[in-house]
Amino acid sequence: MQISVHQARSIIAAGEARAQAIGVAVNIAVLDAGAQLKAFSRMDGALLGSIDIALGKAKTAALFQMATETVGEFCKPGGGSPGLEQTNGVLVVFGGGLPLTAPDGTFLGAVGVSGGAVAQDMDVAQAAVSGLD
Amino acid sequence: MQISVHQARSIIAAGEARAQAIGVAVNIAVLDAGAQLKAFSRMDGALLGSIDIALGKAKTAALFQMATETVGEFCKPGGGSPGLEQTNGVLVVFGGGLPLTAPDGTFLGAVGVSGGAVAQDMDVAQAAVSGLD
Amino acid sequence: MQISVHQARSIIAAGEARAQAIGVAVNIAVLDAGAQLKAFSRMDGALLGSIDIALGKAKTAALFQMATETVGEFCKPGGGSPGLEQTNGVLVVFGGGLPLTAPDGTFLGAVGVSGGAVAQDMDVAQAAVSGLD
Amino acid sequence: MQISVHQARSIIAAGEARAQAIGVAVNIAVLDAGAQLKAFSRMDGALLGSIDIALGKAKTAALFQMATETVGEFCKPGGGSPGLEQTNGVLVVFGGGLPLTAPDGTFLGAVGVSGGAVAQDMDVAQAAVSGLD
Repeated sequence: MQISVHQARSIIAAGEARAQAIGVAVNIAVLDAGAQLKAFSRMDGALLGSIDIALGKAKTAALFQMATETVGEFCKPGGGSPGLEQTNGVLVVFGGGLPLTAPDGTFLGAVGVSGGAVAQDMDVAQAAVSGLD
Repeated sequence: MQISVHQARSIIAAGEARAQAIGVAVNIAVLDAGAQLKAFSRMDGALLGSIDIALGKAKTAALFQMATETVGEFCKPGGGSPGLEQTNGVLVVFGGGLPLTAPDGTFLGAVGVSGGAVAQDMDVAQAAVSGLD
Repeated sequence: MQISVHQARSIIAAGEARAQAIGVAVNIAVLDAGAQLKAFSRMDGALLGSIDIALGKAKTAALFQMATETVGEFCKPGGGSPGLEQTNGVLVVFGGGLPLTAPDGTFLGAVGVSGGAVAQDMDVAQAAVSGLD
Repeated sequence: MQISVHQARSIIAAGEARAQAIGVAVNIAVLDAGAQLKAFSRMDGALLGSIDIALGKAKTAALFQMATETVGEFCKPGGGSPGLEQTNGVLVVFGGGLPLTAPDGTFLGAVGVSGGAVAQDMDVAQAAVSGLD
């Protein structure tokens, strides 16, 4: 089972609806289970610097099948994997990237959100994931 | 005037409708006037190798404000700018990338299409441009 | 359906048996359907310069789901896609990379072989593919 | 004396047996004394993000002929070589990479393991090294 473009669009739509509700303009990237780009959208007014961050968050969450901030725990000072964030052509290890999983547990890919404060990006990413259903 | 996410989606929708009509699965990238990613969509079944090519075509058309095959004329053996295609971190200089222009002539960005034969990609790109109206 | 490490090993074993039979030392790379590395083996005596080529052939065949020399047809002087070989971080567009397909038609990934003359690499790649069964 | 493909396979087999015994799916890379790729294997279910890490650990251990975590000691805050991990195109400086040495003391290369917790990767790497005998 692969993520469909229909699913990717629902994910982005749910994320953008939430972003609009909280008054922030974000970039949203959706990657498939192989960490390949499936869909991307930059809301009007979203920062250009956040394009790469949204893509990087989605890549990080797809490659490790976990939330970006969870990957970040491993790289923290005193964490078990110092420098992990420099692998895979640089990871993004703060909140805003989440894995996507089908109801039957199949890993489908990941979504990455960037443009607001980290807490806002995480909020939008969570809403985006709910768009998968 | 900047390209809006609404316009980017209309462009992609028009391109995908044409792609479906001619039976090909493509990747479509839309960049703004600053050659920055605005939206991207990979139709189900589109080749992974075409993701980078669609992005590259859109980048090439956006950076030079002309069709990718027109840029290609300059790089041809005997053309005036040998090696041009190696600049800007590699250009894509065959058909499938087109500039986007507002009715008043304002340059808005570019669209890049990849996934089918070059003639098909050009066909889809033309349809995508018409989605701007 | 994803390629298994067991299948990847059968593919490499079949390729290496053929390479040994024709007296050439090769590198063999196996990638999954998402163009991610699954297995690699360098026979004793195989050229170091061929490591990257074997990986590149497998990547090219995986990204485009076709033989590397078929991709090469598009980039030839007078071909429809000049410069295609510069996309995706450089492709390898001569013989020795082949797609891997399951009996039911599912695309599974690709194998890339490098170390001998191109005709030898193609011969070994063909043998490697037959190891999938 | 150079590491043989036969030895590389024994190393990988010993590592994978241990990984299976402790219930983790890992990527294992074996490099020769020149830090060039000799063999690689991704167990079914191993994380895609760990491919690059396994290769990076093996590279780090091969380039410095010591365990990756020992290299990491030099880069620690207060250590003697701050930024060392940024050299050689990024090193991986946490546990899971070990040098390979012949019974007569000849340096043969290195093995890198990634996919589990660091302690698990180190455990598997140790088992992999024992497969050299």
